[in-house]
Amino acid sequence: MKNHSFFLLLFIFLSVAPTVSVLSQAKTDTDTDAKFIRQLHNAALTEGRCYPWLHYLTKRVGARLAGSPQAAAAVEYTFQMLDTLGLDSVWLQPCTVPHWVRGDKEIVQVTQSNMGEAGLHAIALGNSVGTGEHGISGEIIAVMGVDELEKLGEAKIKGKIVLFDRPFDATKLNTFEAYSGAVDQRGSGPSEAARFGAIGVLVRSMASGLDDVPHTGGTGYKDGIPKIPACAISTNDAELLGQMLKTGPVRVYMRTTCQMLADRPSFNVIGEIRGSEHPEKIIVVGGHLDSWDVGEGAHDDGAGCVQSMDVLQLFKRLNYKPKCTIRCVLFMNEENGLRGGLAYGSEAARKGENHLAAIESDRGGFTPRGFTVDGESAGAPEKLKAMQAWSSLLAPYNLTIKGGGGGADISPLKKQGALLIGYEPDSQRYFDYHHTAADVFEAVNKRELELGTAAMASLVYLLDKYGL
Amino acid sequence: MKNHSFFLLLFIFLSVAPTVSVLSQAKTDTDTDAKFIRQLHNAALTEGRCYPWLHYLTKRVGARLAGSPQAAAAVEYTFQMLDTLGLDSVWLQPCTVPHWVRGDKEIVQVTQSNMGEAGLHAIALGNSVGTGEHGISGEIIAVMGVDELEKLGEAKIKGKIVLFDRPFDATKLNTFEAYSGAVDQRGSGPSEAARFGAIGVLVRSMASGLDDVPHTGGTGYKDGIPKIPACAISTNDAELLGQMLKTGPVRVYMRTTCQMLADRPSFNVIGEIRGSEHPEKIIVVGGHLDSWDVGEGAHDDGAGCVQSMDVLQLFKRLNYKPKCTIRCVLFMNEENGLRGGLAYGSEAARKGENHLAAIESDRGGFTPRGFTVDGESAGAPEKLKAMQAWSSLLAPYNLTIKGGGGGADISPLKKQGALLIGYEPDSQRYFDYHHTAADVFEAVNKRELELGTAAMASLVYLLDKYGL
Repeated sequence: MKNHSFFLLLFIFLSVAPTVSVLSQAKTDTDTDAKFIRQLHNAALTEGRCYPWLHYLTKRVGARLAGSPQAAAAVEYTFQMLDTLGLDSVWLQPCTVPHWVRGDKEIVQVTQSNMGEAGLHAIALGNSVGTGEHGISGEIIAVMGVDELEKLGEAKIKGKIVLFDRPFDATKLNTFEAYSGAVDQRGSGPSEAARFGAIGVLVRSMASGLDDVPHTGGTGYKDGIPKIPACAISTNDAELLGQMLKTGPVRVYMRTTCQMLADRPSFNVIGEIRGSEHPEKIIVVGGHLDSWDVGEGAHDDGAGCVQSMDVLQLFKRLNYKPKCTIRCVLFMNEENGLRGGLAYGSEAARKGENHLAAIESDRGGFTPRGFTVDGESAGAPEKLKAMQAWSSLLAPYNLTIKGGGGGADISPLKKQGALLIGYEPDSQRYFDYHHTAADVFEAVNKRELELGTAAMASLVYLLDKYGL
Repeated sequence: MKNHSFFLLLFIFLSVAPTVSVLSQAKTDTDTDAKFIRQLHNAALTEGRCYPWLHYLTKRVGARLAGSPQAAAAVEYTFQMLDTLGLDSVWLQPCTVPHWVRGDKEIVQVTQSNMGEAGLHAIALGNSVGTGEHGISGEIIAVMGVDELEKLGEAKIKGKIVLFDRPFDATKLNTFEAYSGAVDQRGSGPSEAARFGAIGVLVRSMASGLDDVPHTGGTGYKDGIPKIPACAISTNDAELLGQMLKTGPVRVYMRTTCQMLADRPSFNVIGEIRGSEHPEKIIVVGGHLDSWDVGEGAHDDGAGCVQSMDVLQLFKRLNYKPKCTIRCVLFMNEENGLRGGLAYGSEAARKGENHLAAIESDRGGFTPRGFTVDGESAGAPEKLKAMQAWSSLLAPYNLTIKGGGGGADISPLKKQGALLIGYEPDSQRYFDYHHTAADVFEAVNKRELELGTAAMASLVYLLDKYGL
């Protein structure tokens, strides 16, 4: 071999060697990652604690609207459970929450129509005012949305009860899109109708299908407009009113005694494993501890809470020592005020905390689909692209990462640069249960819930290891 | 421009033009396909009939074991429904089915143990013999599988009741893998235990989790070995027996009066749209009409039947005229004999029919995942690869095509060259319901069922248009 050939080869070797080394390191990491993600799934499916925790939270604590005794019990229970896990810190973070109470069982009755009388399955919207002890009566005027009010005008609306009747679009594959396309009726319908002199509002329930179960959910009154009482009615009953209205005028009596009381003190419940290398970098995984006051808040959002707790349980069980601080946050009052999320965000800002990412599970405890990354988070496009490099590690579990929403509770962290991530389970069944008496423990499947925990733990692991 | 440049350009143009044309044709086809697959989904979600059909089949007909009056009613009902669709032919295909009857409610009781007595949740295995009017009593010996019998030998087994106690492996992501890993205990356990002198068999239910619901399912006796009675017990009760056995001997009394009666005549129910270009090429889509005799056979396999019927309904509704013949086959007696599948296969062979492909839906009416293609079908690897070219059309609906099983009823078509395809929904909940009293209409979600119909219709459309 001539000298210059030797040097050429040496040069080639020196050029190639680092690449080989990097590739081989990458391969080793991929194997390690795949193995650990498999371990997380195995442990979630055999040693997970989310399911019994959910049983207690739903069956022993029950529905837990912010300000209620059950919300206080939920704070105490989850604090105690986190405190059994050997975390580095577990604490309560104070917040002040609105205290709305439903009062008597709602009465909504058709008192006059060409098809006779009928009692309707109704539930007052959260935050709404009551009708007064004697109730109210009025003729129904149906609209398919807020836009129609302007066209009808005060002449046709004044003194009446407006029925917002636009259904979910069944052709949306993701039911959250159907929800988004209808929920303005519940959120702003009462104030918009009151603007034209309506005395009350009925809203077709935010539901995927036809049944007898009414769905509650928050409404918001606008300043300077009279606050009028508002109920959701079941989708079957909305259909019935539609039939009745085809035959002539329909009069309805409604009575609700709900009211907003003085704010109450409450808490977010927080537990964390401190980072071994970058304790100042925080990854949040969380759900909301409050629920509506009917059912048991199983899918919404008991599931998200116990999954978030279980992520930390799994890390401790598998003796995983994260580089960053992994923090489980159970937010109070997502449903009718977001005070817990706001309090957490304020406190994080005050302390100048560095939140790398925040994952919220608040779409039910169904079979995992993956994660959605909030497109407006700082550097979202590049971060999403970087995360999609993990696809091959997540694909065996049918998990994908794509653009989409983060979560309400974590949204205040966006302005501090946190990447907001929503855990995404299959959506088909969610709006059969959402905000209803049917959202009970039995509606949650153990394996589907546990696989959600495993999915979230896997993503936290990758975020912790590779950063963003 | 010089002449030779002109000719060069002409040459280039002539070379490229056909490619462009092919590409542009392919693009047009892709657009057309995407549009039609979207139409199929929209129609399934808004004008599908599978859900009300399933309601009738489960609530008005009910459990429909082969040979039962309900099975006859199911034949009549589905024939009548197919006959409303304006198909080219609807007919009944005769087959002869075994007629097994359960008899009295099973009794399985712990009569002696150091933890006292206990009644167990039990259900006789399909096809099993009864204990006789007076029942049998014996000491329990637990094994984790058929292999252990040999090690224990006749000395330890003779005169006893063998408990096959190997649970599902919870770490299998697809529950059908867990089922495959345990079901040999139910299928061959009784004869294997009888070989060593056992007088009866209990089997831990083929279930994903712990609950009180026993799962029936077929067992098969081997010739020349005494037929001994066999029951499944709930997984909770299997755990209880395990605890009891740790404390000392456990004696059990069991009484079943099931028996196999003489065969009965029955039918497959078939409807078809004749192909406009290749009527001789047949694509089958089907499920099985019989169910076990408990519950309502909603997921297993009412779902598969009504989805298959709805595929034809959608094609007629959208006025789609297939090139090939699309045939919906509702097979009789999958659960305890496969006589319908065998009869269909024989008749197809006798007539020399050309089955391009057969799709079976028999894994429940859950959210679609995609399809599995039987690897042993003729030309499977190439056909699978060709089908995977449709991935981009199916991805928006979260559908994938991969290797896997076809289906029991369609399996006799394999030797005639049909590509066997299994419709694959999400598997997490299936073995909570499979072969139990809990497999009822209410366990099926309307949208999940309808999306399954749409998935199957989409694949049939692509198979029809592009062949294999």
